Amino acid sequence: MNVIVAQSGGPTAAINATLAGVFTEALSQEHIDKVYGARFGIKGVFEEDFVDLSNVLKTGEDIRILCATPSAALGSCRFRLPDYSENPLIYEDIRDVFAKYNIGAFFYIGGNDSMDTVSKLSRYFSLIGSDVRIIGIPKTIDNDLAGTDHTPGFGSAAKFVNVSVGEIARDTSVYNTKSVVIVEIMGRHAGWLTASTCILQSVYGAPQLIYLPESPFDIEVFLNDVNEQLKHENSVIVAVSEGVECAAPEYVDGGFTPETVDAFGHKYVSGIGKFLEKTVKAKIGCKVRSVELNVSQRCASHIASKTDIDESLSIGAAAVRAAMAGQTGVMMAFVRKGDSPYIVDIGFVDIQGIANVEKKVPSDWIVHGNCVKSSATAYFSPLIRGEAENFYENGLPKYIII
Amino acid sequence: MNVIVAQSGGPTAAINATLAGVFTEALSQEHIDKVYGARFGIKGVFEEDFVDLSNVLKTGEDIRILCATPSAALGSCRFRLPDYSENPLIYEDIRDVFAKYNIGAFFYIGGNDSMDTVSKLSRYFSLIGSDVRIIGIPKTIDNDLAGTDHTPGFGSAAKFVNVSVGEIARDTSVYNTKSVVIVEIMGRHAGWLTASTCILQSVYGAPQLIYLPESPFDIEVFLNDVNEQLKHENSVIVAVSEGVECAAPEYVDGGFTPETVDAFGHKYVSGIGKFLEKTVKAKIGCKVRSVELNVSQRCASHIASKTDIDESLSIGAAAVRAAMAGQTGVMMAFVRKGDSPYIVDIGFVDIQGIANVEKKVPSDWIVHGNCVKSSATAYFSPLIRGEAENFYENGLPKYIII
Repeated sequence: MNVIVAQSGGPTAAINATLAGVFTEALSQEHIDKVYGARFGIKGVFEEDFVDLSNVLKTGEDIRILCATPSAALGSCRFRLPDYSENPLIYEDIRDVFAKYNIGAFFYIGGNDSMDTVSKLSRYFSLIGSDVRIIGIPKTIDNDLAGTDHTPGFGSAAKFVNVSVGEIARDTSVYNTKSVVIVEIMGRHAGWLTASTCILQSVYGAPQLIYLPESPFDIEVFLNDVNEQLKHENSVIVAVSEGVECAAPEYVDGGFTPETVDAFGHKYVSGIGKFLEKTVKAKIGCKVRSVELNVSQRCASHIASKTDIDESLSIGAAAVRAAMAGQTGVMMAFVRKGDSPYIVDIGFVDIQGIANVEKKVPSDWIVHGNCVKSSATAYFSPLIRGEAENFYENGLPKYIII
Repeated sequence: MNVIVAQSGGPTAAINATLAGVFTEALSQEHIDKVYGARFGIKGVFEEDFVDLSNVLKTGEDIRILCATPSAALGSCRFRLPDYSENPLIYEDIRDVFAKYNIGAFFYIGGNDSMDTVSKLSRYFSLIGSDVRIIGIPKTIDNDLAGTDHTPGFGSAAKFVNVSVGEIARDTSVYNTKSVVIVEIMGRHAGWLTASTCILQSVYGAPQLIYLPESPFDIEVFLNDVNEQLKHENSVIVAVSEGVECAAPEYVDGGFTPETVDAFGHKYVSGIGKFLEKTVKAKIGCKVRSVELNVSQRCASHIASKTDIDESLSIGAAAVRAAMAGQTGVMMAFVRKGDSPYIVDIGFVDIQGIANVEKKVPSDWIVHGNCVKSSATAYFSPLIRGEAENFYENGLPKYIII
């Protein structure tokens, strides 16, 4: 039989390591012939936009460079698979394509929305009595998937965020004047990435203030927090999640409100960092800057976490073994056995309870609404350890373009 | 005799390598006893805020970690030394401090404004017949200093910019839809950093459009450029210098104009990227995002150029040798002997012709106002080569805090 692998949702620095894991493990399986990559996610399946990965990934070095290549090498999509009742034809098309290419298993690497697709497809194939296995492999820098200790891609994003905020803290420290830097970090509804900066506090003493979407936000309390810090700190670093919602009329009416809604009905938020910068400038008056770390958070392969890349490769390989063992309708998952030493097993969970559930930062990790308790570093710290391999040529990273 | 070294202006990823070069070379000189670091630039001199660097930098590993530490380890300032005629007392204070600490040479690592200080101080000490040597060592990510082939710090900033834009280009390529990403890059009056992205065009095919402050900018021409690219490209990456000035009334009146003037009378520009994003959204209507690379450009030590760090160390050491040979009133400089193989000598130039001169990107490098000619890569490419050493502990870089 043959298998198909596809990537979906927002890119990460580790999503290609998972692709590499699926590919290499599938190649080593006696019962698998071809490994097809579908381009642009599930759309590539019903559009039969396939690439035989053996034609592209020919050497061990190709695989290692793929692991160091950011973003989805196969392309991605933000396509919402309609319910079967709404559009049975699309399901029958996929069934026919799978039959035509003799597909025994489909691996979908993605986040929450992709797990919704895995859930729908696996139910459909079970319903029609097909033995095609549908396996979800988690991927998101947001770390907001239920059923897994953490998500592939999160560790590398957290490493980029922490290294960058650490550097910004050094940068800000050079002048002997009071200043505030507000760093806006990705995370629409879950503040995992922002919360991870608690690792830095014991190492560099910054960020002094951390705001997550899990906690209510009040602009007056924020200004008071900053003023308190400025009493004893020369430079104050604030880590704020892009998803923090502010009810202040200047925010809501000032052009900082969500502008766009994506294909999944998610609000497209932006602007809290810039708004806080303007507010500090107006109300406190000290030197202030805002920094939006932006898309580099999800594609900065040059500073990827070795732990994350290694685990992302392993979870891809484990997905193939799970499929060959007959599993379907599951999402692969990390099960943490210990923080120190850090030990993780790879298992799987039933997809039905996972899809469309957002995992938030536990409320008891958040202190006074502006801090993450230091014991949370035990959770975050192992995920950013180690520096992933990179391949440079004339000073620039080499990538695999499929 | 003893010597003093100080750092000034905006931080870079390489300014501490130059400090390390001054320190290690001074230690090895028979006639130098103590190497003092003055905190917060020239202010540390007349405030006698000194640190004996031998007390902080004790091992070879300390020196290597210092080279990997971003930002100015001694602190910085943006203090404009008044003319002697305006305030002779400050000069006499510095003279007295130098006498008190038996200072034979003062090394000032900085950009344009710091070279102004070197110029004024060296003229003063010559005037009073003192043999204290005043040496400027260039430093700026902007690469806008005259008299040197390039500046220490520029190569590391250019490496961060190019690696980041390359990653963003991968990130943007994943969706099968038309999109534009505008990357705003530092450079108030000189577009060197933005121009350096021409290196990427032959490697990754992006950025397709490059706009520098050296070239007049017209919003209608820009929109036409983007539309032309969108005809044959799925995703268009635009590299734009923060210093690009737009005369469009929506820009000038829309809150995007310069807001602040710093202590040197420089305008504090920002916002061209966000403005272009909004304009593309309104006038072209495709998916568009703007990314401001922000302060990471000057402090991302984790992706510093080995060439830059090595050269920054060497130019610091050469400054000490120049002072011991009796030079004063000079700025150390790189003299390029060849692009391929890349060969650089270190010399010095008279400070009087250098201070307050801004070196721009040559106009014949700029093609059609939206591109940099590919032969310019011969200039930029050697500067980003090699990956500087970093020291990690639990996934985070180790720094030397003085």
